[in-house]
Amino acid sequence: MPPRASACGLAVAAVALLSACVADRPATGAAPPANPPAGMQYLYGSGEAAALSVQAFTALMTHVMAKVKARPVDSVVLAEGASLEQPRFVPCGDKPFAAVFDVDETVMLNIGFEYHDATTGRGYDAAAWDAWERTGAGAVSAVPGAAEAVQDLRNMGVTVVFNTNRSAANAEATAAAIKAAGLGEALHGVTLYLSGDDAMGSRKDGRRAAISAKYCVIAMGGDQLGDFSDLFNAGQSVTARREATMQGAIAHLWGNGWFVLPNPVYGSGLKGGFDDVFPADKKWAMPAQGEKK
Amino acid sequence: MPPRASACGLAVAAVALLSACVADRPATGAAPPANPPAGMQYLYGSGEAAALSVQAFTALMTHVMAKVKARPVDSVVLAEGASLEQPRFVPCGDKPFAAVFDVDETVMLNIGFEYHDATTGRGYDAAAWDAWERTGAGAVSAVPGAAEAVQDLRNMGVTVVFNTNRSAANAEATAAAIKAAGLGEALHGVTLYLSGDDAMGSRKDGRRAAISAKYCVIAMGGDQLGDFSDLFNAGQSVTARREATMQGAIAHLWGNGWFVLPNPVYGSGLKGGFDDVFPADKKWAMPAQGEKK
Repeated sequence: MPPRASACGLAVAAVALLSACVADRPATGAAPPANPPAGMQYLYGSGEAAALSVQAFTALMTHVMAKVKARPVDSVVLAEGASLEQPRFVPCGDKPFAAVFDVDETVMLNIGFEYHDATTGRGYDAAAWDAWERTGAGAVSAVPGAAEAVQDLRNMGVTVVFNTNRSAANAEATAAAIKAAGLGEALHGVTLYLSGDDAMGSRKDGRRAAISAKYCVIAMGGDQLGDFSDLFNAGQSVTARREATMQGAIAHLWGNGWFVLPNPVYGSGLKGGFDDVFPADKKWAMPAQGEKK
Repeated sequence: MPPRASACGLAVAAVALLSACVADRPATGAAPPANPPAGMQYLYGSGEAAALSVQAFTALMTHVMAKVKARPVDSVVLAEGASLEQPRFVPCGDKPFAAVFDVDETVMLNIGFEYHDATTGRGYDAAAWDAWERTGAGAVSAVPGAAEAVQDLRNMGVTVVFNTNRSAANAEATAAAIKAAGLGEALHGVTLYLSGDDAMGSRKDGRRAAISAKYCVIAMGGDQLGDFSDLFNAGQSVTARREATMQGAIAHLWGNGWFVLPNPVYGSGLKGGFDDVFPADKKWAMPAQGEKK
């Protein structure tokens, strides 16, 4: 036992009490944190994440320019009844071109909300998020590269459509936030699709079907796999979900019609226990002293 | 004051004591964590990060194919004396083509070491990392998309050069790990450059100069800005460093010669206090009840 064991025993016992005290601060515990969580440092503060975002929009624009020059037969929206194993796509016909983007952490950074989240330690809270949707327009910014990309798309005649799980009840405030971030105009039901537009809740396939009925969608951008297909959120294991992104025709879509933006702060990418994240055959431990050489 | 205030006062006071107790477990505190940290869930477990990685290699291959068809005048390695504001590049001449990659979390995932890190809660430890370099070959895997990309590059006649801050003392073990990850052969001093190869420590500009003296480097890949230029690590503020990635000619390089891989787990992207990460004009707070509408 280490020398401080008995004092530590008392202190450890006190933690249960403290846990009760901080029950109304569910996320990170007692003391106000010295720094934002690592994921926020990375996404909102680092040059690495900014570069990763600019890179995604550069790849998207390269792709879109090629498709505008040579109209594709198919859009990049999966057709009804398609599977990840056997993807089929909504045909383009002679529909006008569009690019479809999620909003939060895809084209717009929720700086103000995440500041509130990190400083209060309250984690996600539906009431706070609703207040944020209604009043946050002054505290957002564009994802690096996004404002230039949406402007260039519009200049090329490609309609920019936003498909977000923000609430239809807050449509005007969300359009105001999009504009304040430097991303231009968004009109509910025309270039802005929201949760509540149909009966599918946060699932976006129905809204994607509506958009791809009107447009030849040549690019989609998102930070969550659900921004590309609801099939990624069909209850499969963490491991199977990751595998599904790397196999067959789906693997070919990343950077080639489907464009991912980084988000290690929240969402469907932040799941999994040790056995999900670290394969059984990759669990290294320090060699015992005698094994060192 | 909330009803439990006085008991909480006692419990909060006990936290200082507890902090002392866990000082020999520097990273995450007392109890073994239920899950890996969010950044590891994201990077090693999510489909989102896998897709982001595949996308980066897809963009890199598109870029390289274009450059192999039409030889560029300049490489993508900054010339000596260049600045981020006024970048100049090492000329290509008729040198053979190469692509230069960092190793860790760029082409190879250190699954085993991060498992050790997360389960022991010890954080980074130089001795553990050295043991990992020497014995970890069985517990690595390729970054999604990396193995296919390096194979395709070699098939196209583009030499793949690894430039990593792993130690020159462990060159053979690192080459073995690279091979075990499915990334092929790496030969120290030829296609594998390591920390200790010169007197510049972890700074890579000297090694990049040596590589670009022999090759026309048409693409670089890394998860840290130092994988592209030491100028990003010149002591500037977190904010200035991020800004430097998004301005002028440098912004144009991401996805266009310089290719970033995600890493929210460790490194130079995980820095900054609240004032660095959240600009002063973006600090939102919940509106008071009366302001809600």
